[in-house]
This record gives sequence, structure tokens and C-alpha cells, in this order.
Amino acid sequence: MRTMSSIKSEAAGKIIFGIDIGGTTVKCGTFSQDGRLLLKEEIPTRKDEGGSLILSDIKAYIENILLKEGIALEEVAGIGLGVPGAVTDDGTVNKCINLGWGVFNVAKTFSDMMGGVLVKVGNDANMAALGEYWMGGAKDYNSIVMVTIGTGVGGGVIVDGKALCGNNGAAAEIGHLPIVEDETEYCNCGKKGCLEQVASASGIVRVANRFMQSLEEPSSLRDVPYMSARIIFDEAKAGDGLAIKVTEYVCRYLGKGLACAAAMVDPECFVIGGGVSNAGDYLIRLIEKYYKEFVFHPSKDTKIVRAVLGNDAGMYGAARLVL
Amino acid sequence: MRTMSSIKSEAAGKIIFGIDIGGTTVKCGTFSQDGRLLLKEEIPTRKDEGGSLILSDIKAYIENILLKEGIALEEVAGIGLGVPGAVTDDGTVNKCINLGWGVFNVAKTFSDMMGGVLVKVGNDANMAALGEYWMGGAKDYNSIVMVTIGTGVGGGVIVDGKALCGNNGAAAEIGHLPIVEDETEYCNCGKKGCLEQVASASGIVRVANRFMQSLEEPSSLRDVPYMSARIIFDEAKAGDGLAIKVTEYVCRYLGKGLACAAAMVDPECFVIGGGVSNAGDYLIRLIEKYYKEFVFHPSKDTKIVRAVLGNDAGMYGAARLVL
Repeated sequence: MRTMSSIKSEAAGKIIFGIDIGGTTVKCGTFSQDGRLLLKEEIPTRKDEGGSLILSDIKAYIENILLKEGIALEEVAGIGLGVPGAVTDDGTVNKCINLGWGVFNVAKTFSDMMGGVLVKVGNDANMAALGEYWMGGAKDYNSIVMVTIGTGVGGGVIVDGKALCGNNGAAAEIGHLPIVEDETEYCNCGKKGCLEQVASASGIVRVANRFMQSLEEPSSLRDVPYMSARIIFDEAKAGDGLAIKVTEYVCRYLGKGLACAAAMVDPECFVIGGGVSNAGDYLIRLIEKYYKEFVFHPSKDTKIVRAVLGNDAGMYGAARLVL
Repeated sequence: MRTMSSIKSEAAGKIIFGIDIGGTTVKCGTFSQDGRLLLKEEIPTRKDEGGSLILSDIKAYIENILLKEGIALEEVAGIGLGVPGAVTDDGTVNKCINLGWGVFNVAKTFSDMMGGVLVKVGNDANMAALGEYWMGGAKDYNSIVMVTIGTGVGGGVIVDGKALCGNNGAAAEIGHLPIVEDETEYCNCGKKGCLEQVASASGIVRVANRFMQSLEEPSSLRDVPYMSARIIFDEAKAGDGLAIKVTEYVCRYLGKGLACAAAMVDPECFVIGGGVSNAGDYLIRLIEKYYKEFVFHPSKDTKIVRAVLGNDAGMYGAARLVL
């Protein structure tokens, strides 16, 4: 990344803005058309007044960059926006609750605000997948399924460079595959037995607590004051028997979830992201072991790789949307 | 449908051939560009000599039609072929075992044989889905998942008029969703717990036999000399308690399978076809009941309809591929 004064020369062509609108901050990326992130900054997400200030703040940010850098509007190839909610192909959002937004065409609204510049809008999880597809862990693959394991279990499906959105914006909702047969508690979504219930960061902790209650064996996990998915994976790697059982249980369901995804879309590659993916190769190999146990044979050699762009993935994907 | 002598005037424009190549017969459809089936005939599938006669037979059939009808080659918009096996986007097949074929580009080969006419090739299950999407039960919908319940459980995913093939030609393999948790026997594919094991025609019979062995209750099914999925659904409709339990068990898994499909691709509509779908509204309503129990809420109102084209669906889809 370079200092601001050199963006224009660094881009060597038109520039693209890739903007990832989150509930707390708006991540603003300035990209070259060949996918280099030239500048990365964050501005706060102002949710007052029904979220009506968010787009004006982004407009002000972009105009300031253009002014400082001496870049004309004609040199902007387009602006991509990632938003936390369902988006239709024409850029209409259907209630982004985290932003206070109702139903309106964000692409048209922001393009009008920006003097007619090309604006594209996508769902944030799909944008993260598109970013990893474009410039991240799945750069070398043509169709991918991304699985983000964090607070929840989300995902994105990219086929031939395009995110699969679904009729209700609910495609690639891998966390809500109903595959945990004997689940007795409810998922946040109101159903029982979603993958997310055992494989999100809090789901993994829940599984560990259950195992500690139902099993007698000693475990270093029993002495942990603040349990987390990270600690569970660390203890499993260190050889703790109970922690290993927990990670095997969790990854068996993740492997089965990926096998379901393969049976439906048969991607060239799976990309695993989100905070829990910091467990690294141990996690990937364990998911792969169970994936191979469950998957229909034509898809048995599908690659499973780690995401590499972290929190920048959404900006990359939003920028890619414009191309 | 009209007699052969009127095809040219009936078509009111160019014609399309939609050819569904099966293991026993080749179904040959002559279509108008607006989707009317003007002529339907079958020729035997000659599998001698490594299947090398099949394309020549189709060529001879088409040339005969053109000659009899006084149709010039220029009046043929294209020829679509459905084949029983995986096909890549450029029309290359990867071993159609049922036809004796190895690996070759069927689209190019047949186009060369036919003097350069546009030829497109697709997988037969995808073609059936595309046919139902174009002119069948899913005519009014933009994205569909078709589930064919017969000898096996197969399917097709259509998004924006295009079949989702997958990297290994293994997308939409709904029958191999690994969702039957406690299965002890092996599926034909070598895994345990595939949807197909409890929901194909023979899978349904297997479930009925298990229920008859493990349950004491009397049932009209116990007197049936040759058990079939059809008889089981007929007896369930007639009120037989054990038959009802079997159909509830089967449709619970079908509903869960559709919920998995919705979590991945979120279609506008599900289309249920294949021999077992003759069980009609009873089957559809039971699948829908369990679908709603398992599906992630944004997709809860997705329509579930019956296929209407029967064995003609593959011809329709092959023809649609050319457009």
C-alpha cells in the first residue's frame, strides 16, 4: 500500500472504490483495476436518522480522496458497496436492520448522488467470497464455496465470477443447513439442528460444555475461566483428549456441511474464513477428513483452503463487483 | 402435435431439434422456437461398436425429417443433445458408461457431422430440469431446483435459464446429500446415509420392509406380493397406519433435503418429478410439511410443484439449450 499522493500513478489506469459497510465501521478501499489495494481507511458507520447519513458520509469520503489526489470522476471505473443484508441483482436492499435501512435501491440512489458513476451493491458475505475468489485464497479457482466460521456460520457461492444470491437473498446460508439430527435446543433462526449451532464460535463452546458435563474424563478445558473456540482448538492441538473429541465432533458436522454444499453446487474449491479459521491447518485437515467421509465421489478431491484476506475480503469483493 | 407434413408451417420460423439420448432409446423432438413440440419420435440406442453409431443414427433421423419436410439446414436454429453423464460447458463428455462413450467433444463432433449447425450438449438430469423450467411445471419461475424421484434421486439446478453443472459435473446431486444420520447400509455410491437410500423408489420399499420387521402392527402392506413405492403411497392414502408412517419418514428426509438445497441455492421453486411423483398432491404436501419444519426462514414460502412433462422433459430441455 502507498501513501495517498501516489494513488493516481500507482493505479496505472482507472480506480475502483470497494466499500464494505458494517454495523460499526465502513471499510473504504481504493483499488487499481488489476486488484491492488492502494489505500485502506475506515470511517464510523453513523446509524442515526435511520441510517440516512451513511451514504452521504461515503460520498464525502470518496470526494475528499478524489480532490486530494487530483483524480477526476471520469477516472473512477465504479464503486462497489457491500451491505449487511439481502440484496437483489439490481442493487435493492430489503431491510438492512444493522444499518437502520428499509427497502430502497442503493445502487441507483448512490449512483445519482455520485453524478452517475457506476455503482454495484452486494451482500457482505457474498462480497467476502468474491474477494477471496478475486485476489485471495481461491484466486486460482473458477467456482468456490466460502464458509465463514465466526459469530455465526455464513458463506458465499461464486460461480463463473458471480455470486449466487438466491431468490430471497438466502443462498449460501451454510450455517442453516439442517444437519444436526439430535439437537434439542433452538438456533437463533428458530429452527433446531442448524450447522451453526455446533460450528459457530459460540456453538463450539456449547459443544465443549456439553462434553464436559456428560464425560467424566479430566481435561485442561475444565480449568479455563473464559472458554472460547480458540482455546478449545489450542488445547486439542496440545493433545487434550476431551478437546480433541470436541473438535472431531465439530469438524464432522462441518465436513458433512461441505459435502452437502458439494452435492448442490460442486465447487472447484472451498475457502474457510472467519475468526475460527485461525485454528489453521489442524482445522482444515479435520474438516477435510470428514468431508471425504461424506461427499459424493465425483467431488472427493475438491480443494479446501484457508481465506487469506481477513477483514479486507469484503472491500476486495465489492471492488470486484464493478468489473 | 401435428402430422409431419405440416412441421414447416407449424413452426412459423426456424426449428430446433431436442434429442434425449437414453440407454435404450433416443427420444427425438422437433420444436418451434417458442417451445411447441411439433413431432416426437423414438429410435433405438445402438450401443454396439463403443456407441459410435449413436450420433450417425441421430444424423440420419434428422436428415430424413428435413428431406421429407422440405426443410433446409439453414432453417434449423440448432440441435440440443441430452446425454446420460457429466458434460462440461463446451460439450465434452467424460465417459457416458451407459452409451459406451469415452471422453470426447460431442458438440463439436456432431456439429461437424451436421455441416456446422449449432449443437449444444447437456446432462440428461439437467436437461429435464431445464425442460420443466422452459415449458413445464416451473414455467413461471426464474430459478428452480428439480428433484427427480425414481430409480434414484437426481436433480437439476437452473439459475437464470442456465443449468448449474459443477466443477465435476456433480452439482444438483440431491440424492447424495448425506443427511440420513443413522444409516447402517451402503448406498450404491459407496457412502452411508445418502438421501437416495430412503427416498428413491427402491429406498422407499426398503424403509417399508424395515418398518414391517420392527413394528408389530397389522398393515395391508404385509399382504402385498410385489411391494413398490406406488403401492406404499396408495395404501397410505387409503389410511393404512404403517404405510403412513413409511411415507412420513420418507418425506421428512425429502423435506430436509429440499431445506438443504434451499440453504445453498435458495431457488424460487422446487419441481418434483420422476415415477414416485405420480403419488401426487399427497406426496407434495407431505414434503412441504417437513420442508417448512427444517428450512431457513427467508426460503419458507418457496413453491413446491409437480413436474408436468414426464419423459418428454429431457427433449424440451435439450431444445431450450440451443436458445
